[in-house]
Amino acid sequence: MKNYKILLQYDGTRYKGWQVQKSTDMTIQGKLQAVLEKMSGCPVEVHGSGRTDAGVHALAQVANFKIDVSMTETEILDYMNAYLPEDIFVYEIAEVPMRFHSRLNAVSKTYRYRICNAKRANVFERKYVEVITEPLDVEKMREAAAWLIGEHDFRAFCGKRNQKKSTVRTITEILIEDNRTKENYKPVNKEKRNEEVVISISGNGFLQNMVRIIVGTLVEAGLGKREPESIKEILEKKDRSNAGYTISPRGLALAEVKYD
Amino acid sequence: MKNYKILLQYDGTRYKGWQVQKSTDMTIQGKLQAVLEKMSGCPVEVHGSGRTDAGVHALAQVANFKIDVSMTETEILDYMNAYLPEDIFVYEIAEVPMRFHSRLNAVSKTYRYRICNAKRANVFERKYVEVITEPLDVEKMREAAAWLIGEHDFRAFCGKRNQKKSTVRTITEILIEDNRTKENYKPVNKEKRNEEVVISISGNGFLQNMVRIIVGTLVEAGLGKREPESIKEILEKKDRSNAGYTISPRGLALAEVKYD
Repeated sequence: MKNYKILLQYDGTRYKGWQVQKSTDMTIQGKLQAVLEKMSGCPVEVHGSGRTDAGVHALAQVANFKIDVSMTETEILDYMNAYLPEDIFVYEIAEVPMRFHSRLNAVSKTYRYRICNAKRANVFERKYVEVITEPLDVEKMREAAAWLIGEHDFRAFCGKRNQKKSTVRTITEILIEDNRTKENYKPVNKEKRNEEVVISISGNGFLQNMVRIIVGTLVEAGLGKREPESIKEILEKKDRSNAGYTISPRGLALAEVKYD
Repeated sequence: MKNYKILLQYDGTRYKGWQVQKSTDMTIQGKLQAVLEKMSGCPVEVHGSGRTDAGVHALAQVANFKIDVSMTETEILDYMNAYLPEDIFVYEIAEVPMRFHSRLNAVSKTYRYRICNAKRANVFERKYVEVITEPLDVEKMREAAAWLIGEHDFRAFCGKRNQKKSTVRTITEILIEDNRTKENYKPVNKEKRNEEVVISISGNGFLQNMVRIIVGTLVEAGLGKREPESIKEILEKKDRSNAGYTISPRGLALAEVKYD
């Protein structure tokens, strides 16, 4: 028995999220497990660094699984990619110590949210960006984001009702890049990029829908629908109804997972 | 009655090509005409700079149409984008002289073909690149391409049997960019790009399937399946059977159309 760590990317558009479900085989974990079970002839549990919601993408999800096969790492990688659908791709594999667990050992995760702030997205990127047509005030969004940095009880930003476990998490950084060129109609600027505002959020862990609710709240601040200072009160009141809307999964991707 | 020139981009994956067909409404021209007919209440003919094949994309297709409506250019643009499917986007509009015709007045067109020369494409770009897993010798491809530059009878590179009109065309440039990093397994390199070989072909006009047959022939030269010099003979013999295969439309996009 050996423990393997993999890095994979996926286009989440067609999937019901990471976690295996009884009602559908359209989950990332389910697709990976099916291929590994076919390969090894035995049930295999694949542990992800975290569950991505339905429709959320991954640039570099980390997962691990334990199997007993007489194959090299490259052979396992080739086998997996030969049988996985074309929107899931495993691009690195390495044997790791048996105690390694991709979720329990993760020390930091970064999610990236892409907003196209124009009338329409570039057709080639349309499944990976959320279109916000009204102009966003990025400075207001940065002011709002500053209130979220540090250790807080993020209960108000949790999409799961009756969450029993701790909702205390630490956000280490929120970076908001403004890649717009002010040509508001153009789906692409001269470098053929979308007119984008890209939000990268790093922290030690995230509650269900937390990134999407944070981004929804920052968008409301950027549109002048709420004051940046309102974040302070949202955190204090710990009530979901005070925070902003849960923005679409379309623009969201798990970008990086760090380990010690 | 006014004549309008538009610039549009489309993801050709779902479409049966540019040209309107009786058997399907899934054509780019058909979708544009349907929206303009709805807008103006009259039949409208949209002239494209050229017909793209089924599955071929466009970064900057040019088209023109004559209509009589009391709307500003921006209003027409907004109307079109509101009713067009999300994989077709009109990003520029301008009134032009009545004599302007997007196909007849075009002096040069550039098509771009993207090959991912690795075991698999980045999942987010997979519909826009053709995967060639065996390593390509780009120098051999450039040698082969050099034979095609200039005015030639491209009958051997025409996909249409019994073509009656002239098959003489001029290719002004074939640029082959090598963006590979030699990490053959990776779908993306550190800059998050595919391991790509990108072929840009410019000329005064192209026959049916001509770009795809040229790229297929260059790929055969890059894989060592034919000598670069064989292009000379293909041109001389003017027989389709001597040229290479018609590569998939997936990697092809109309990139630019120039006018005087």
